[in-house]
Amino acid sequence: MKALLTTGTGPYGIALGDRPDPVPGATEVLVAVEAVGVNRGELARIAVSPAGAPLGWDVYGHVVRPADDGSGPPAGTPVVGLSGGEGWAELAVLATDRLAAVPEVLGSTAAALPVAGLTARYALRAAGPPTGRTVAITGAGGGVGRIAVQLAAVAGARTIALVGDPSQHQDLAHAGADVVAAYGADTGPVDVLLDSVGGEALTAAFDRVRPGGVVVAFGNSSRAPLQLPPTWARDRPGVTLRGLGLFDEITRQHTARDLEGLVIRAAAGRLDPNVVVTTGWEDAPAVLQGLNERRIAGKAVLLTGSHGAGA
Amino acid sequence: MKALLTTGTGPYGIALGDRPDPVPGATEVLVAVEAVGVNRGELARIAVSPAGAPLGWDVYGHVVRPADDGSGPPAGTPVVGLSGGEGWAELAVLATDRLAAVPEVLGSTAAALPVAGLTARYALRAAGPPTGRTVAITGAGGGVGRIAVQLAAVAGARTIALVGDPSQHQDLAHAGADVVAAYGADTGPVDVLLDSVGGEALTAAFDRVRPGGVVVAFGNSSRAPLQLPPTWARDRPGVTLRGLGLFDEITRQHTARDLEGLVIRAAAGRLDPNVVVTTGWEDAPAVLQGLNERRIAGKAVLLTGSHGAGA
Repeated sequence: MKALLTTGTGPYGIALGDRPDPVPGATEVLVAVEAVGVNRGELARIAVSPAGAPLGWDVYGHVVRPADDGSGPPAGTPVVGLSGGEGWAELAVLATDRLAAVPEVLGSTAAALPVAGLTARYALRAAGPPTGRTVAITGAGGGVGRIAVQLAAVAGARTIALVGDPSQHQDLAHAGADVVAAYGADTGPVDVLLDSVGGEALTAAFDRVRPGGVVVAFGNSSRAPLQLPPTWARDRPGVTLRGLGLFDEITRQHTARDLEGLVIRAAAGRLDPNVVVTTGWEDAPAVLQGLNERRIAGKAVLLTGSHGAGA
Repeated sequence: MKALLTTGTGPYGIALGDRPDPVPGATEVLVAVEAVGVNRGELARIAVSPAGAPLGWDVYGHVVRPADDGSGPPAGTPVVGLSGGEGWAELAVLATDRLAAVPEVLGSTAAALPVAGLTARYALRAAGPPTGRTVAITGAGGGVGRIAVQLAAVAGARTIALVGDPSQHQDLAHAGADVVAAYGADTGPVDVLLDSVGGEALTAAFDRVRPGGVVVAFGNSSRAPLQLPPTWARDRPGVTLRGLGLFDEITRQHTARDLEGLVIRAAAGRLDPNVVVTTGWEDAPAVLQGLNERRIAGKAVLLTGSHGAGA
């Protein structure tokens, strides 16, 4: 089968190549992949992978072979799921506890949901019940951040979207943000901080977390060290700072159920996955570069093979 | 009444002076103070207080006037408690929900327990059930650290005591530590890290916390910023870092009950408060300097007035 494989030629070094078809285990379905999602984490993987490595977590397609153990959907069902990292291919296996059926109205847009949507869901969950609390979200213009804004607002939180340039992100107000502000702006005290930027944005935002509040760090797009002033624990007593890694978190969560919840919301028009680029998978290098350079401010979905731009 | 008051003359600027007698509220007892404990936090208070400010959290003495609301012990009861910060005086008020009766066998040694013992208790509690888990404790030779080692060991944790110079702290093995090691030593993975040192000791110890583990920071004797590598959340997914401030924490805890538990353990010889200096309160400046310069490696108790060294 065809698959996107690393070429070992730099940060966007990825190209279509050939790979053996995957063989599903007893609790996995085999999926004919029609669309895949692109995440910042895959950029990091490319940077550290030798040539010829497979990639890809977010997968959308139709089941071509159901799971041998009887779990999961029958053949022909359109599904989206979180693969083990080899999903950017014509065929992929998905564990039945990490996939959800996709209503026709949503279609391949669902490919943007697994990593970004589940990360946002689990970051918010790790922070405790959001209703009636003030939730600030750094990187609110990004794939995860924008979903987190929507989920927090729908759950009844007062939501503060923190971004580099508020003038470029006023649409976050339509996504549910009560306030759209720049990093370091004095937006008043917050109960919960969801951070995917790190560095100075996190240091500044941390200073506004109420005693007893919760900070969940699920990314570090600034690639800067975490730095807090010497008196951080005394000044913000009872504050919890939690690191969240999706592939660690899903070992303790009901991922299929949570993914289904995201899919249903998106299909009903109550959650916008914010797909701003949909193109054929042969364009993967340009898409990766656009995401890395922040020219693509949202999610990108790549269509495979005959489903791609040339079809 | 006589009281220790700041003089505004440097880090150990404190001397006996005169102050009006305190007036207890309806839920407070009035105590004739016989002994007080000294904590690192009071050093910090002196540094930022104008001349004439009262100090002191840890108070031991006899009730001379019970609480008007009928709560708490009757007159004549020996008690230890956490005062609001004016306890280094001949008379002090203690809220009845922040004190415990003291068995005669323990006596004035109990003055070392409130701040150090409750901080250790709440740090351990914040980390979750310790039984069967590996708990590392920085600053294990200090007042709080040494109690935390004992409480963790008794609760069934494998306990790693981290100190600056292990050769000077082999006695921590008798306190229950399974391992006594230097900061940065590779002592293997830990589930829980209790930190009162901060800086490089915390950065190094954080790197050994298992995914899903808990770090509770209740002090920062190094006075260094918190610094973690850019990949901290990815490398240690699910790790929680919690700042704990005692006077914030007690608003959510049953302090009287917890203090009683510490007093009972200490009276039964199952918890050593590690009082290494007992002297008259006129020696407060020298004691504070000794603690700050780490020549006093344990707790200091100051005896007031006629109960002091000269009695």
